[in-house]
Amino acid sequence: MYSFNNDYSEGACEAIMRALAESNFTQSAGYGLDEISEEARRLIKKQLECSSCDIHFLVGGTQCNQIVIASMLRPFEAVIAAESGHINVHESGAIETTGHKVVVASSVQGKLSAQGIREVMEAHNDEHMVKPAMVYISNATEIGTVYTRSDLQELRSVCDEYGLYLYMDGARLPMALVAEANDLCLADLQRYFDICYLGGTKCGALFGEAVVIFNDRLKPDFRYSIKQRGALLAKGRLLGIQFRELFRDDLYLNLAKHAVAMAQKLQDGMKELGISFYTESTTNQIFPIVDQALMEALDGVVQYQYWGRQGEHHHILRFVTSWATPSQAVDDCLTWLRQYHQTHSHI
Amino acid sequence: MYSFNNDYSEGACEAIMRALAESNFTQSAGYGLDEISEEARRLIKKQLECSSCDIHFLVGGTQCNQIVIASMLRPFEAVIAAESGHINVHESGAIETTGHKVVVASSVQGKLSAQGIREVMEAHNDEHMVKPAMVYISNATEIGTVYTRSDLQELRSVCDEYGLYLYMDGARLPMALVAEANDLCLADLQRYFDICYLGGTKCGALFGEAVVIFNDRLKPDFRYSIKQRGALLAKGRLLGIQFRELFRDDLYLNLAKHAVAMAQKLQDGMKELGISFYTESTTNQIFPIVDQALMEALDGVVQYQYWGRQGEHHHILRFVTSWATPSQAVDDCLTWLRQYHQTHSHI
Amino acid sequence: MYSFNNDYSEGACEAIMRALAESNFTQSAGYGLDEISEEARRLIKKQLECSSCDIHFLVGGTQCNQIVIASMLRPFEAVIAAESGHINVHESGAIETTGHKVVVASSVQGKLSAQGIREVMEAHNDEHMVKPAMVYISNATEIGTVYTRSDLQELRSVCDEYGLYLYMDGARLPMALVAEANDLCLADLQRYFDICYLGGTKCGALFGEAVVIFNDRLKPDFRYSIKQRGALLAKGRLLGIQFRELFRDDLYLNLAKHAVAMAQKLQDGMKELGISFYTESTTNQIFPIVDQALMEALDGVVQYQYWGRQGEHHHILRFVTSWATPSQAVDDCLTWLRQYHQTHSHI
Amino acid sequence: MYSFNNDYSEGACEAIMRALAESNFTQSAGYGLDEISEEARRLIKKQLECSSCDIHFLVGGTQCNQIVIASMLRPFEAVIAAESGHINVHESGAIETTGHKVVVASSVQGKLSAQGIREVMEAHNDEHMVKPAMVYISNATEIGTVYTRSDLQELRSVCDEYGLYLYMDGARLPMALVAEANDLCLADLQRYFDICYLGGTKCGALFGEAVVIFNDRLKPDFRYSIKQRGALLAKGRLLGIQFRELFRDDLYLNLAKHAVAMAQKLQDGMKELGISFYTESTTNQIFPIVDQALMEALDGVVQYQYWGRQGEHHHILRFVTSWATPSQAVDDCLTWLRQYHQTHSHI
Repeated sequence: MYSFNNDYSEGACEAIMRALAESNFTQSAGYGLDEISEEARRLIKKQLECSSCDIHFLVGGTQCNQIVIASMLRPFEAVIAAESGHINVHESGAIETTGHKVVVASSVQGKLSAQGIREVMEAHNDEHMVKPAMVYISNATEIGTVYTRSDLQELRSVCDEYGLYLYMDGARLPMALVAEANDLCLADLQRYFDICYLGGTKCGALFGEAVVIFNDRLKPDFRYSIKQRGALLAKGRLLGIQFRELFRDDLYLNLAKHAVAMAQKLQDGMKELGISFYTESTTNQIFPIVDQALMEALDGVVQYQYWGRQGEHHHILRFVTSWATPSQAVDDCLTWLRQYHQTHSHI
Repeated sequence: MYSFNNDYSEGACEAIMRALAESNFTQSAGYGLDEISEEARRLIKKQLECSSCDIHFLVGGTQCNQIVIASMLRPFEAVIAAESGHINVHESGAIETTGHKVVVASSVQGKLSAQGIREVMEAHNDEHMVKPAMVYISNATEIGTVYTRSDLQELRSVCDEYGLYLYMDGARLPMALVAEANDLCLADLQRYFDICYLGGTKCGALFGEAVVIFNDRLKPDFRYSIKQRGALLAKGRLLGIQFRELFRDDLYLNLAKHAVAMAQKLQDGMKELGISFYTESTTNQIFPIVDQALMEALDGVVQYQYWGRQGEHHHILRFVTSWATPSQAVDDCLTWLRQYHQTHSHI
Repeated sequence: MYSFNNDYSEGACEAIMRALAESNFTQSAGYGLDEISEEARRLIKKQLECSSCDIHFLVGGTQCNQIVIASMLRPFEAVIAAESGHINVHESGAIETTGHKVVVASSVQGKLSAQGIREVMEAHNDEHMVKPAMVYISNATEIGTVYTRSDLQELRSVCDEYGLYLYMDGARLPMALVAEANDLCLADLQRYFDICYLGGTKCGALFGEAVVIFNDRLKPDFRYSIKQRGALLAKGRLLGIQFRELFRDDLYLNLAKHAVAMAQKLQDGMKELGISFYTESTTNQIFPIVDQALMEALDGVVQYQYWGRQGEHHHILRFVTSWATPSQAVDDCLTWLRQYHQTHSHI
Repeated sequence: MYSFNNDYSEGACEAIMRALAESNFTQSAGYGLDEISEEARRLIKKQLECSSCDIHFLVGGTQCNQIVIASMLRPFEAVIAAESGHINVHESGAIETTGHKVVVASSVQGKLSAQGIREVMEAHNDEHMVKPAMVYISNATEIGTVYTRSDLQELRSVCDEYGLYLYMDGARLPMALVAEANDLCLADLQRYFDICYLGGTKCGALFGEAVVIFNDRLKPDFRYSIKQRGALLAKGRLLGIQFRELFRDDLYLNLAKHAVAMAQKLQDGMKELGISFYTESTTNQIFPIVDQALMEALDGVVQYQYWGRQGEHHHILRFVTSWATPSQAVDDCLTWLRQYHQTHSHI
């Protein structure tokens, strides 16, 4: 039974597996100071069209968020996020464990707006409350939507107005960049963000994320922050090898294109059958709303993630595709849904 | 130029690389809940001869120490370590960042004694000082020595007397277990320790350590601690696959035997040339004491780690071998040393 | 110009000032280990009708909340509070700085309900989210309302069901206990709470709060937690002296009666003039809703705290009275309001 | 029986008790924003001969150390202290609980030297170790010695060389400033320190310490740090009133003169009897070395603090005097000692 449960069910793309095997017995320096990691940084900088940024490779996304945020904030400062922001919900208090409050601003379709940030800033006006100092967004968001250039321009403006850092969690960045609703490219990131990370784990690698620091103030001593949080990988070259492969030619975006194409094909097919969706996703996560009967019938057919209730009689499900999703798996799912549709008055 | 700089300069042993490739496209559950990780746990428990322990796979050693210690202690409690203990020196304050003081007890050859712990406990007798609640040891130690059964029996007694947990950092545990000075086996661990970790990164894996919890009080909710510190690997199966291979048959100890044999051969050869050593190591780390001239001459021959001064005219170097060290590299090094010896009055 | 801005604008009640002067040159043990503090503890236990609780005197409310919560929770555990809870809004992240998330549950009139807690517990069901382990309430609440016996019975049940500690912030507890809406007494506290604190700063003392621990599990080593957070007062007797006076006879509740009587007289007088209120307060904080004109006119007459907007044209103000509020100040305020009312069509 | 156990056994000097009584019913703003606190700040700045520093009043010394250090350091940074430094030994891990390691440098008579700091800095040279960023000293030290101008000039130089902040714990600063070995005055502090605190608790106040920030970089948002750690006293004027009295005319130093005179008289008298001392104290703490017999005999005569063993047969005791010590108490103690001396061959 195929699993659309998430985008980290398989290993890594073939280029990465091959590169790991080839380099296996070559000795190299530890802790990310090796030459392959250096080459990976050069390739990423080239695609970012930014030679002055600092790049550090970490193992996972929560680790990135925790280290970046703890490294940027003074003890009484807070980070602003959407209610659905990964750091607010799904990181077991990883941010609070470093001493910082996550302050929730209003959001629409998982996206923060300048207005929401402004409201938070006006409500936090003296030392009896935390001092928000940073804005966290995810792109693509946790519910499959993406930020446009115009969205980011507004966020950047409000951040400049209030002296806030802007940070992007890019666990699924390439899927955002190849989405239909997107008008950004990698070279735009330096214009909007003080810091961000480019996801690897969900984008073709075995594991790994690349933290990119654009703002000079945030660069010094970042390796101390990594080591202090237990995240300085001894065989750091493993991260370098993987990112070198992803950023050689267009592999990073090409893998994302496949992932998104698979999800959108599934979504389009579901829409044709009259299924409605929780969010307007143009990325690799889609959120069909189904009734109890269909949900139960699906249980023997594919794996998905249960997302929550919608009204009294419906459920929101999450289907996720990846670089590894076979086209056949999508076709099989749609075929089954069409058959189900023919034998049931409503879906 | 061959590097004896550390034991994490190469990738992984062949069995692991093969297993990673074979399983690459199989879908599996995330976060260590997959079947391969479950199988790895069974294999480890079998070698530990302990079915009741809990096993969790983490990525690196500092991560293990930080999560284990932060998980075990109340906020005002402290951990006792040797001056040379990894948590005291080489983890950038990873323990303190979780709020806990590392209290140094006296040690001999990198090893804690019951007497040293007793002195600390008697000096910490009211709420104006931290409350030591745990003892941390490394086996093998950071300077290549090992704890014997009798050492551990004494430590366990003093821990029981004062109500202290006993924790072992096993980054190089297999190298300890195959050392000449050793009289322990894996099945002994449950008798002495509340919790420990079995090293993978330095013992044949790409990365990974296995935390083993023997004490029932420490078991609940450990996965929360892992996730909260950013250490719950999305593709947790990568850890499971590696530990399954290491604990299938005797691979884990066999790899260590090779590492230790290489270091001991090098040490024996050096001793024959009159070189003396900083510690009595029977494991895979050796610490020759050399003069300035020899140190400089070595620079073009092999890589090693500079450890520190010894008196005014000598230096301590660290040579480390691993499962991957070719016998030829040791032979070449010794050949060069013998030639150097013939042309220099003293070494 | 009289200030109704808060209930900590003056010093201490006369009995306390006298006792401080009388004992000034007597030598006593430090850090709360003196005999006067011991006597104060006995007097409090008598009024609580509980001889087995532990009592510790601290200096302020945020300090109590921070130390109690940090002392009770494991690192990944969280505390549930109302949106308006003091720890959620007005403590500059004092809870988060100890590593713990404050999870907001739905509330009505500043009060948590069993239903709100249940919703939080059902939403937090695995290790990717924090683990709520404690419920925080304030009584009286931050907006002047009080919990009844029936409210607390429900909270206690849901806490028992989910294994949660129940903690009461009693910064204004005596004002709650003498309120019209109240049906609790001091001796009831042990039935509902694992731990609480009895306010002193706002209740007649210069400063000071008494933490009362009912649950045996929370008692060991609490003095370590106090010292570690910088809250172990060297001249601890200053706290003992004050609480001894407050809990000799009925001074504690009598001072609160005066405070509440003043606020209720002011509220009743305002209601007669047609002013409506933000909350149904029967304690010493009242929240009149006024228009722009009245608010501006008041500015030259009394001091109050601005609380927030109510709709487009009105404002919520906070008036607070205390043990020290002179009856004359309330009369003068009402006289002015009546005159204002006669010359203005609406108020 | 008179207690020389510490310098916080009594209440406050008369001027302070009178001022507290006089202002008791005056309303004032909370949290240190009142006019009396402002006046106290002006008086202190005048004596410091520094108009540009920021002054914040806190309740106790551990609180000051914790807030100052946590406010100054980035998460991976550490503070250097003497082995006997208060933050290293007697604050229950208050510094570590904010995430920072205390790194011990070598010291002589409780005093740090430039050489000791240099050794620490040279040993901490990469991101695998914490990054020392601040030096902590106490003046007077925990064992009664004082820093001279020349000592401080050397410390300042080494701090400038390595980019370290220099912080002084002045719990007993006035006793240092009036000591025979001293050549500093209050106006010198700005030349050597980035930040310091002037003790009140042990120097005539009921409680209270004044944090003085000289370095502009450390000034912004310090009130956030105070509030976040639960140290923003609601009735902040209590601190202002006390420091206003202490810094009106020369009361602060005059109280210290009495304290020091009492201790030195006691020390001189003991020396005449042949008693030797653990340290060369010219302040209000003295450390006589006595044999078992004398120690036991003293037990019924005066209270003192046991400090530790000296060799196999002797003990170090601590005698502390204060602004409140009656001359008679010292005379009585010396009289008893002289009588003891006449009836015992050695002392």
